[in-house]
Amino acid sequence: MAISAVQKTEIDDIRGQSAPTLRPVVPALEEILYKPIPVLDHGFIRVVDYMGDDSAIVQAARVSYGKGTQKTREDRGLIRYLLRHWHTTPFEMCEIKLHIKLPIFIARQWIRHRTANVNEYSARYSVMDREFYIPDAENMAAQSQTNNQGRGNVLSGQEAQRALEILKVNAARSFDEYLELMNEDENGNKVCDEKQGLARELARMNLPVNVYTQWYWKVDLHNFMRFIRLRADDHAQYEIQAYAKAMLDVLERWVPHTAEAFNDYQVGGCHLSSPALVTVKKMLQGQKVTQEDSGMNPREWRELMASLEMEA
Amino acid sequence: MAISAVQKTEIDDIRGQSAPTLRPVVPALEEILYKPIPVLDHGFIRVVDYMGDDSAIVQAARVSYGKGTQKTREDRGLIRYLLRHWHTTPFEMCEIKLHIKLPIFIARQWIRHRTANVNEYSARYSVMDREFYIPDAENMAAQSQTNNQGRGNVLSGQEAQRALEILKVNAARSFDEYLELMNEDENGNKVCDEKQGLARELARMNLPVNVYTQWYWKVDLHNFMRFIRLRADDHAQYEIQAYAKAMLDVLERWVPHTAEAFNDYQVGGCHLSSPALVTVKKMLQGQKVTQEDSGMNPREWRELMASLEMEA
Amino acid sequence: MAISAVQKTEIDDIRGQSAPTLRPVVPALEEILYKPIPVLDHGFIRVVDYMGDDSAIVQAARVSYGKGTQKTREDRGLIRYLLRHWHTTPFEMCEIKLHIKLPIFIARQWIRHRTANVNEYSARYSVMDREFYIPDAENMAAQSQTNNQGRGNVLSGQEAQRALEILKVNAARSFDEYLELMNEDENGNKVCDEKQGLARELARMNLPVNVYTQWYWKVDLHNFMRFIRLRADDHAQYEIQAYAKAMLDVLERWVPHTAEAFNDYQVGGCHLSSPALVTVKKMLQGQKVTQEDSGMNPREWRELMASLEMEA
Amino acid sequence: MAISAVQKTEIDDIRGQSAPTLRPVVPALEEILYKPIPVLDHGFIRVVDYMGDDSAIVQAARVSYGKGTQKTREDRGLIRYLLRHWHTTPFEMCEIKLHIKLPIFIARQWIRHRTANVNEYSARYSVMDREFYIPDAENMAAQSQTNNQGRGNVLSGQEAQRALEILKVNAARSFDEYLELMNEDENGNKVCDEKQGLARELARMNLPVNVYTQWYWKVDLHNFMRFIRLRADDHAQYEIQAYAKAMLDVLERWVPHTAEAFNDYQVGGCHLSSPALVTVKKMLQGQKVTQEDSGMNPREWRELMASLEMEA
Repeated sequence: MAISAVQKTEIDDIRGQSAPTLRPVVPALEEILYKPIPVLDHGFIRVVDYMGDDSAIVQAARVSYGKGTQKTREDRGLIRYLLRHWHTTPFEMCEIKLHIKLPIFIARQWIRHRTANVNEYSARYSVMDREFYIPDAENMAAQSQTNNQGRGNVLSGQEAQRALEILKVNAARSFDEYLELMNEDENGNKVCDEKQGLARELARMNLPVNVYTQWYWKVDLHNFMRFIRLRADDHAQYEIQAYAKAMLDVLERWVPHTAEAFNDYQVGGCHLSSPALVTVKKMLQGQKVTQEDSGMNPREWRELMASLEMEA
Repeated sequence: MAISAVQKTEIDDIRGQSAPTLRPVVPALEEILYKPIPVLDHGFIRVVDYMGDDSAIVQAARVSYGKGTQKTREDRGLIRYLLRHWHTTPFEMCEIKLHIKLPIFIARQWIRHRTANVNEYSARYSVMDREFYIPDAENMAAQSQTNNQGRGNVLSGQEAQRALEILKVNAARSFDEYLELMNEDENGNKVCDEKQGLARELARMNLPVNVYTQWYWKVDLHNFMRFIRLRADDHAQYEIQAYAKAMLDVLERWVPHTAEAFNDYQVGGCHLSSPALVTVKKMLQGQKVTQEDSGMNPREWRELMASLEMEA
Repeated sequence: MAISAVQKTEIDDIRGQSAPTLRPVVPALEEILYKPIPVLDHGFIRVVDYMGDDSAIVQAARVSYGKGTQKTREDRGLIRYLLRHWHTTPFEMCEIKLHIKLPIFIARQWIRHRTANVNEYSARYSVMDREFYIPDAENMAAQSQTNNQGRGNVLSGQEAQRALEILKVNAARSFDEYLELMNEDENGNKVCDEKQGLARELARMNLPVNVYTQWYWKVDLHNFMRFIRLRADDHAQYEIQAYAKAMLDVLERWVPHTAEAFNDYQVGGCHLSSPALVTVKKMLQGQKVTQEDSGMNPREWRELMASLEMEA
Repeated sequence: MAISAVQKTEIDDIRGQSAPTLRPVVPALEEILYKPIPVLDHGFIRVVDYMGDDSAIVQAARVSYGKGTQKTREDRGLIRYLLRHWHTTPFEMCEIKLHIKLPIFIARQWIRHRTANVNEYSARYSVMDREFYIPDAENMAAQSQTNNQGRGNVLSGQEAQRALEILKVNAARSFDEYLELMNEDENGNKVCDEKQGLARELARMNLPVNVYTQWYWKVDLHNFMRFIRLRADDHAQYEIQAYAKAMLDVLERWVPHTAEAFNDYQVGGCHLSSPALVTVKKMLQGQKVTQEDSGMNPREWRELMASLEMEA
């Protein structure tokens, strides 16, 4: 992760300015406020602001005049009830704002979560940083044999070495050419007097999608959890999982009761379809059920048996 | 406005709890935090939380590591530039949360602003308050003769008196019947042992749309300004204007540079259509232009002349 | 349901105008296009337009140049896979537009589904119809004893009779007063020359929330199903269930494969939380599990046992 | 633009299947339905479905039972009134669905319009096409000297030639390497038996952002016009302007009255801020106004004078 000395100073400065507020304050989140949390080789997430805490959820659910309640135990109970029953609106009443550095191909997956606010660094206006995502050796995996959009075994030997070399050389060369096209150095200074330099909005076309970009991203707690649930999941691409997992740590600092309920009720469980529920009920009553008489197709049956850790 | 003694104590309690934060703090907004600002006869708005300030807009626009800049003058200039050119995303990076008490017919207009989060007091679950909006005498206006959905002259004499009486009697009677239907008193206690009481979700059907409801409403700064621009406008119903104007005061406390630019650029100006712009250019060059050769229809022409304070 | 003779003629006229199109056409939906489907005592839904069919979902999922596939069997399989795994974007590629007549208190629940487009009949501009929702005797239920926001036993005898009378008399009287306030008859004609009449936007304040309003409502297929799933559910208020169930019939006509998968996978199943899944696995392996060692609280345990039709 | 023979056949097939419908039909749009309209060197837009026409806007605005009106003249007048006054909801009642092929760096600008539905071709699942955007010589422009995010003079001579060569060679090489990384040919067939091939979701990292992707994109008429207004504007990047202009042609075929009003009222006009309006009024009354006494800063003043075609 590349935080320059100047950036570090800026962060230290802003962390040095404390002021009193009547709003809810979360000390565990204040501890890491503004500090970059490394993700992948050059990426990070930084919490730059937040609104609300566990009690704010209760307060909104109750449309109350003061705090939700005075009693932590009651608050926790209500939060667990709300999350268990997928009541979403009270969780929309908290908000978090992050500064994120991430490769463009991940940014393109990220942005599909539409209920959020985004301000991205402009490559029409500014020069991009020379930073590219290059996977660790253990993440250089082959296409999965069983899943059309996942990964299988890790590449090894010469194939792995050659693949890494392609990615690295391509990144370096395309960035050198990017600067040459603009006739600028990495700080945006003109290089060669007799050249005009191609417009930045065009020169960037030479950069591959593993170049890092950055943005401010603001989202409410409900959609923050939704993002984590979908993107920390095994089926998500490994690289976006890395971000989602860092965000799960942030969630646990910010709203511990909500995070606990989130882990209990929305992560790691499973949805039983109507025929799957019928099947489970029969099995619990001691009946033997087969795929054929379950009303499920072979694929659904396999998925259910896998969830229940039974033989298909 | 009905803030009960209990509610007042709750508000005082929560205002008594200050804590240090590293986040941006706006002292002028902290001053009024949690305090109800009266609107109409029984309504209010209360700021219950906020995220960001003027500098947070600059910070997001620049995707910066520390504060936007250190220099107030530069921040103000950038904010004015952004608002003048209708760049909206940096203003989405601030957020505000209000507790609002408002009549149902206004709540129905309000909710049409979809980009916001809402938690409403539930009349399926709880008993409504005995509070109804009854206009002041000077707001009891007749249908406009020139505008199909506006108001004209104020009613006077016996007609005014009779109208107010109808509204007041209807409110009181319908609320009495509401309690009778539920077999409950205003605190939700059962009245008559031998009656079951109609479900709350049904009994409320007897209440008129000027009964007050309340909700928590959270919105980003861009959509907050959009609400104010549309609803503080003369064409909006007077009652929602009253709320929008109270919100404009909040805006001025919260983000003074943004509020200044908002007033200069987005309020009180006008949009010139393509043919209107051509007309204005010609007039400024000393040409005489008539409706006929302007390419505008009579109504458009009248609207333009009114905007320019010229005779149609 | 009040469809006037004029309205009936308008509907017949528009149904008489057929034209050829290259777009997907769904004959079963064309059959009922524009025709009101009665809901409650005076309400209705009418499909006024639609975009796409089952094959359009496949086409979008495959980003294809022609139809999705030529084979119905493959289309059905893909649709089932997508719905089973909660892939939502291909279902957003179909759209439906309804004209709906519904009581205001239901409209207020309805509008909380934000991802939709709405055009409502304006009571600032026009006179409302004299139509109010009055429940059938069998729907006049008491507050539930076990659920804070549901219904219990049906009222009977004198209490039921008195309740119905209150609602009916209140509706009739408030509407008479509404006309008197405006100094208009039901067709919007002035009644009394020497009176001005209160503005419509104010006079409507006298009407109770069971008065019917109407709107055009347009929504994509994903959010249409989401609405049905949440609102056809037992926990929703009976009156909005009635609309959701009429919409389920529309779904089955419009996109039969999707409707089938929706019924199989998203309706009637249940979500197992992480500790619930662990519990079910243990039980299936023949272990005895109690609430105490399940990690669930008593309420969660009861909910799970109810889902599995086991004794708590 | 690369439409393969197979794709052309698919399109011809789907265009051969006409069926009667009771819905609004727009013959001018049916004419081009499914047909690709070329944009840039390899891109296109294709209308694949639409809902509604000019009369549907009127119908929704009036919440009517049949058509809006029978009279074209009245419909046109209402549409012009609605657009002139920025009433948006009736225009949300029409919907259009496009299949679009576009370079990734344009897709990234495009997706910032959040109120739309998108299904993108998956590079996790499938092999990308060997198609890259390479600008024409007349679009190879230098960074603007006056505008930080625009273009200035066209590059010439050796610099232009070298720049084009860099872009072309980079595209070709990166795509060859992409295939090598996956160990696949362009049809997704394995090349070399002893290699595993890197997962597609990783191999794509080697591709530059001028590679073409494709998606299905569905949007309502209001947001369709909003996109065109912002992206057909001179300040938008040339490449996205090309798409927006092709969409303007589609708009004119689809809803001619709306397109006419859109061109008159929302394109080519200008917004006068409050101080600008005061200035224009004074000038029209024959007063001389200078920047100093206008209350505008030098930059605003220059912008206003430019709009009015007066000397600053």
